[in-house]
Amino acid sequence: MPSVSNRGELMPASPIRKLVPLANKAKARGTKVYYLNIGQPDLPTPPQGLEALRHINRTTLEYSPSEGLLSLRKKLEQYYHRFKIDVSVDDIIVTTGGSEAVLFAFLACLDPGDEIIVPEPAYANYMAFAISSGAKIVAVPSNIDMGFALPEVADFEKLITPKTKGILICNPNNPTGYLYTQKEMNLLRDIVKKHDLFLFSDEVYREFCYTGAPYISAFHLKGIEEQVVLIDSVSKRYSECGIRIGAIITKHKQLKENLMKLCQARLSPPLLGQIVAEASIDASDEYMLMTYNEYVERRKFLVDGLNRIPGCYSPIPMGAFYTVASLPIDDADKFCAWMLRDFQYEGKTVFLAPASGFYTDPNLGRNEVRIAYILNKYDLADALRVLRKALEAYPGRVEP
Amino acid sequence: MPSVSNRGELMPASPIRKLVPLANKAKARGTKVYYLNIGQPDLPTPPQGLEALRHINRTTLEYSPSEGLLSLRKKLEQYYHRFKIDVSVDDIIVTTGGSEAVLFAFLACLDPGDEIIVPEPAYANYMAFAISSGAKIVAVPSNIDMGFALPEVADFEKLITPKTKGILICNPNNPTGYLYTQKEMNLLRDIVKKHDLFLFSDEVYREFCYTGAPYISAFHLKGIEEQVVLIDSVSKRYSECGIRIGAIITKHKQLKENLMKLCQARLSPPLLGQIVAEASIDASDEYMLMTYNEYVERRKFLVDGLNRIPGCYSPIPMGAFYTVASLPIDDADKFCAWMLRDFQYEGKTVFLAPASGFYTDPNLGRNEVRIAYILNKYDLADALRVLRKALEAYPGRVEP
Repeated sequence: MPSVSNRGELMPASPIRKLVPLANKAKARGTKVYYLNIGQPDLPTPPQGLEALRHINRTTLEYSPSEGLLSLRKKLEQYYHRFKIDVSVDDIIVTTGGSEAVLFAFLACLDPGDEIIVPEPAYANYMAFAISSGAKIVAVPSNIDMGFALPEVADFEKLITPKTKGILICNPNNPTGYLYTQKEMNLLRDIVKKHDLFLFSDEVYREFCYTGAPYISAFHLKGIEEQVVLIDSVSKRYSECGIRIGAIITKHKQLKENLMKLCQARLSPPLLGQIVAEASIDASDEYMLMTYNEYVERRKFLVDGLNRIPGCYSPIPMGAFYTVASLPIDDADKFCAWMLRDFQYEGKTVFLAPASGFYTDPNLGRNEVRIAYILNKYDLADALRVLRKALEAYPGRVEP
Repeated sequence: MPSVSNRGELMPASPIRKLVPLANKAKARGTKVYYLNIGQPDLPTPPQGLEALRHINRTTLEYSPSEGLLSLRKKLEQYYHRFKIDVSVDDIIVTTGGSEAVLFAFLACLDPGDEIIVPEPAYANYMAFAISSGAKIVAVPSNIDMGFALPEVADFEKLITPKTKGILICNPNNPTGYLYTQKEMNLLRDIVKKHDLFLFSDEVYREFCYTGAPYISAFHLKGIEEQVVLIDSVSKRYSECGIRIGAIITKHKQLKENLMKLCQARLSPPLLGQIVAEASIDASDEYMLMTYNEYVERRKFLVDGLNRIPGCYSPIPMGAFYTVASLPIDDADKFCAWMLRDFQYEGKTVFLAPASGFYTDPNLGRNEVRIAYILNKYDLADALRVLRKALEAYPGRVEP
């Protein structure tokens, strides 16, 4: 039998995926499972998006242009202008979700052996896409005691080699909820400028910044406009992950050409999703505020609740809808598996994401979990109650 | 400014794409352009698919499972059984179009430097995906005088090196319309078995076989079941290219695991497209027959018409909706550009695809074009009339 490529082996098995069968078994036993492990919002898609879907009046569902529908790209241009992101239609390429935007950004910028520096904990799938492109992710650790702030410039500088092609950030951050400050963004700008690097900036959670501190887009930074590769997606902001519409935005002419070759090879982003996305950009201020307020409330609820559980600690996430918390446990992989396999309280348990999936260094974040606040506050309250009981009962409990 | 990856340079610029601006200018001048250059069917999507779209009744458009909706995969299983393709739900992974199926097949099977052998002329985007994965396409030429039949076994054997990981075919073929015979498929089976290779088989045009000769799926071949990687898509058979739903089918356990890591990294195929695809599989026999008959008629019309033009020759395509024809010209790239830039007859011209885009060897197919029969017969008739006049007027005419 022919052997497969090494990529599969290089791609770390996601600890969340490994737990899914345990969650399924728990459900099959009749245990209620609170799923706080994934970034799948439960909020409604904007009515404008759903209406547009019901009114699609075409007899042939044709390819769209490879770069996306012009009408959607124009809407996106206006949308970015609202955030003072000074880009034009020609800088915007529609992709099949933020995922394809990341993959294509890597394929178009990085040759095998090239390196990108990523503050970790980091969104696990960056790793899979880097491996797909033959490039290497070099992690610079941030830590919970510093609230996951950007590592020091010196920490970046010592990792830069002739192979370094870029720095990748997610802002606001998945998994930590951290929002980079103006000062931190300026530091990134200086490094990127000094070493002539790409700044890949995944800003899909920009609508969800909770502290009054400003959202600083990589495109707000002066003097590196052609080095910025913005990754975007409508999935999270309009609760429409399934339509698979994202975008990649760049002013780098040659990069656009490279990207378009990839886009042309895959022919077209999804037509139906583009129609829904375009209409969703017209979501009312009320809709956006309702969504925002919901997350604000859940965030307070979750973080306050976590910090009241003895031995637990969560920094205050400033954006997105996740937090990374430390628990009084020996090992989060074991604890999360134990909760699903061996524990229930009043017939209920909780599915958390072990933070090990977000670190490349297996020694980091052993007692940390990522919690997504994608359930309503009543369910969150109950999940926290169950978590507290689990931590009391867990045999591997370690006092912090 | 940071430099981009070499992939862009390695990816050949599509000759069709280079002609698009000329076609746009011709249109702007008021010339009517017959687009026979692309595989975008003009026929209607099945009413079942459009109905399903209108009846989507969800408030949140969520991610689907990474491997695709179970209900769609079950439908696909039944669909394949109709063609005596003995696969189960567990062998079927839903992808974002056939394009993603090809890209993921290559990423999951091929390491940088690995080689796959492809009979050419071949679908141009295979090349882009091979380059994305760092693998190399090794072309084995077929030719118009032999009607684009499968090259001899010896031609394959002499290209096999320790780096060879597979053979890729498209059957029925884009761009030639060739349908591989049982004997040819058996030869492929023997080579693949002897050298322990993958057989990548793109069978997206299976519904369109016109000669009564049987469609032989790679999965019909005995003894290489675990070596077959079937590429599929609903785009062509239901005229719904824009929904971006394809599939990759394999019984190779480790390959499935590799593929699932890629699929999980990109989270989900398009939800809306999956709903439309699932309903489209219920397209009536009448719909399928209407579509089929339409292509049968157009095919006869086009091929007969081409062969009546002095100096033109088209083999009879046995499937798909393309033919590769030779014309009495010096160079098809020049001729196709000339038709768009310098020619019109009664205010009309024709956009053909130079075959150079389907060959890796720049010396092959210089006087050949691919013609897609995706317009109704009246338009085809008129396009043929215009083509005849163009060939009479073309300064680079060469008697064959």
